[in-house]
Amino acid sequence: MLLIKELNKDKVGDKITLAGWLRTKRDSKGGFSFLEINDGSTFTGIQVVADDNLDNYSDIKSLHTGASLKVSGKLVESPGAKQAYELQADNVVIYGNTDQSYLLQKGRINFETLRESAHLRCRTNSIGAVMRVRNVLSKATHDFFQSRHFLNLHTPIITASDCEGAGEMFQVTTLDLDKLPKTDLDKVDYKKDFFGKQTHLTVSGQLNGESYACGMGRIYTFGPTFRAENSNTSRHLSEFWMVEPEAAFFELKENADLARDYLKYCFKSVVENAEEDLKFFDQRIEKGIISKLELLSEAEFTRITYTEAVKILEKSSVKFEFPVKWGIDLQSEHERFLTEKVFKQPVIVTDYPKDIKAFYMKLNDDEKTVRAMDVLCPQIGEIIGGSQREENLDVLLARMKNLEIDPQDYSWYLDLRRYGSVPHSGFGLGFERLVQFCTGMSNIRDVIPFPRTPKNAKF
Amino acid sequence: MLLIKELNKDKVGDKITLAGWLRTKRDSKGGFSFLEINDGSTFTGIQVVADDNLDNYSDIKSLHTGASLKVSGKLVESPGAKQAYELQADNVVIYGNTDQSYLLQKGRINFETLRESAHLRCRTNSIGAVMRVRNVLSKATHDFFQSRHFLNLHTPIITASDCEGAGEMFQVTTLDLDKLPKTDLDKVDYKKDFFGKQTHLTVSGQLNGESYACGMGRIYTFGPTFRAENSNTSRHLSEFWMVEPEAAFFELKENADLARDYLKYCFKSVVENAEEDLKFFDQRIEKGIISKLELLSEAEFTRITYTEAVKILEKSSVKFEFPVKWGIDLQSEHERFLTEKVFKQPVIVTDYPKDIKAFYMKLNDDEKTVRAMDVLCPQIGEIIGGSQREENLDVLLARMKNLEIDPQDYSWYLDLRRYGSVPHSGFGLGFERLVQFCTGMSNIRDVIPFPRTPKNAKF
Repeated sequence: MLLIKELNKDKVGDKITLAGWLRTKRDSKGGFSFLEINDGSTFTGIQVVADDNLDNYSDIKSLHTGASLKVSGKLVESPGAKQAYELQADNVVIYGNTDQSYLLQKGRINFETLRESAHLRCRTNSIGAVMRVRNVLSKATHDFFQSRHFLNLHTPIITASDCEGAGEMFQVTTLDLDKLPKTDLDKVDYKKDFFGKQTHLTVSGQLNGESYACGMGRIYTFGPTFRAENSNTSRHLSEFWMVEPEAAFFELKENADLARDYLKYCFKSVVENAEEDLKFFDQRIEKGIISKLELLSEAEFTRITYTEAVKILEKSSVKFEFPVKWGIDLQSEHERFLTEKVFKQPVIVTDYPKDIKAFYMKLNDDEKTVRAMDVLCPQIGEIIGGSQREENLDVLLARMKNLEIDPQDYSWYLDLRRYGSVPHSGFGLGFERLVQFCTGMSNIRDVIPFPRTPKNAKF
Repeated sequence: MLLIKELNKDKVGDKITLAGWLRTKRDSKGGFSFLEINDGSTFTGIQVVADDNLDNYSDIKSLHTGASLKVSGKLVESPGAKQAYELQADNVVIYGNTDQSYLLQKGRINFETLRESAHLRCRTNSIGAVMRVRNVLSKATHDFFQSRHFLNLHTPIITASDCEGAGEMFQVTTLDLDKLPKTDLDKVDYKKDFFGKQTHLTVSGQLNGESYACGMGRIYTFGPTFRAENSNTSRHLSEFWMVEPEAAFFELKENADLARDYLKYCFKSVVENAEEDLKFFDQRIEKGIISKLELLSEAEFTRITYTEAVKILEKSSVKFEFPVKWGIDLQSEHERFLTEKVFKQPVIVTDYPKDIKAFYMKLNDDEKTVRAMDVLCPQIGEIIGGSQREENLDVLLARMKNLEIDPQDYSWYLDLRRYGSVPHSGFGLGFERLVQFCTGMSNIRDVIPFPRTPKNAKF
């Protein structure tokens, strides 16, 4: 059996077999029907011509949108302009039909309704296209990092530590909540829990990634991470996938180079490998997205320091909602102004004030800023956040003391600085944000197969 | 900067820069030292020759195993037989040293002790080699399925359903366990929990995978799964990675072909891409592992039905601990006898009794067996389990009724059979078992970066 994706000129004239789902059917009075079949491998399906010489032609005529079938016949060049090939059926096996209760036969359906049927929505043009682009980006991620000799590392999902206190965490337990064991002080007795202590779902694999980078050189993670924030917005998921490379002997410059090269590789991959899907997004979701991605895959990615960025923003005549001064965290409006108005391309902002960044970022000689970097893109602002890590044990300990972080809680992490410490750097990218950027989809719930959000863990 | 992996004949004579960690040092009386440096990119490091013309030669002499450094110099062919190249240093930057408290300088350390320092153990020969092989297998997995047009699918980790009741699950919650909200009946009020109901960590992505296969054709997952079983053995992890492909229009035969091709591709990839690491495993961990993998990458993979397998076992003169008769679940001793003694190669056993298999497996016409398949390998027995899925709604409902499974709990899953149902199949592979098989490592805790087991979620 072939996939529609595998059809090409060489196969014209061959007898082939395809299988898929019926998208549309048009019955002609002349005793034949046009069936448009899609098998999920491409955006455009194939037109099948079935006529009344087929034994089961009357069954074929009774098929509804969404019916599943296998068709054998001759592949011919199509006389129509819409598609390159069509299939002249000489055998049609019907696997299953649908009925009036099938959601997806009633013309265009809005994304919100589709979300309620997340188990079926990949059968639509839009979500099918999104998931193919998502796959292209997943493949591009592995291909890119493997080609640069980064090892794919599987960092733990269940964790007993809280990386950088990056946000609300989900608790993981096997205790019977209706019969909780208690200590003498009437607190929950976590010694009796599965891991012998309180555990949570990870918010980042970075610290574990650093451990492997400081021994194997270059690693990247690509796995699920979690935030238990009660944010019911189109930008937040409770469960999402992150890409986190970490490299020994990379300083901030190499880290920024890596982030730029990775993003450009992704954009180029989508342009080259999801042409039909992108055309759909260009027409229906975001006008100009193809040329946007083409431009970005060749863009320079301007680099400026935070201090320079603040100066530019202060000098501009724009009245921002959040007033700008040195020390503030840049808001989305500032980030977009820099990328969209000033530089008209992605911008990598480096060396942020230490007070707005995490404890593990390397302190600069000015002792006011750290070697952080954010990669800002038009439309969405920050798409990547990263830094060179503090490799000096004493500096790191002083910083933790300042922030009242107990070194005991990070003793294994500090070992990486005690024994053969090396300069190293890394970054994190929220994979769904990247998929949104490459498809134009406005709600993050529509770019992950089964979204997890407050009050919703359906399917 | 180059990786040791990137060195080749063309670079002999070049001035290059490398960085890594000191594995051994030998000081000669003639005023020079041999430093063996490893950067994690390969098993064998590189020998650096540093002499007293270097400004910091006295510092170099004081370095301990595990120290980190960057070396620039000329790459030359090595006069020694041990390595192809060596580096004549004309500049050595010392990043960090170690001291007597560093675990990894005291000769060979057993795996149990290394596990206590999981954050450092990738710096050893053995665990470094394991993790490079693990990466080769991860890359092979993506490459294989992408080349067959399977889409990488990210199925949810947090779930409100329990696939096939496959085992004990971890609960996920944001409720404050010291102040649990209660219902009128004094039960925990899960309406107040984050997702508005009780949720757990997934044990398999299969059901979600089926949803996407029944629309997009071919998908594969590669993600973490969880078992809250209190099994403190060398074969069990609480958190492990699974590979689960699912394909529409695949019947059991195509499914078995896919499993065979995937495994052979993996074995071949390791042989071709981890030569040095395999040599180490062959010498130190499992004699003959290289020829084992070479043979298996060309093996036929015998296929027999469960009924045939039982007949062979019954006829054999071996006295098994678990007596064999039709209807029993095959035990490891039976599986190993079939692969090691009878067929001397992997065996795919199909069509198991329905009573020992899950509800979603397709019922055969005999109404006694289902289209299940287990792929058995020498030494380990089952490495893959899979099946063709029941696509007939009525048959599936009858089976669920028999097993007292409430169809309401699976209504979305049943929709896949209501609307355009198709024959489809898939399987699951425990990724760590595969890594064990390709390295010979006997304890599963040593083939995942940070193992999670009962009472242990360290790092």
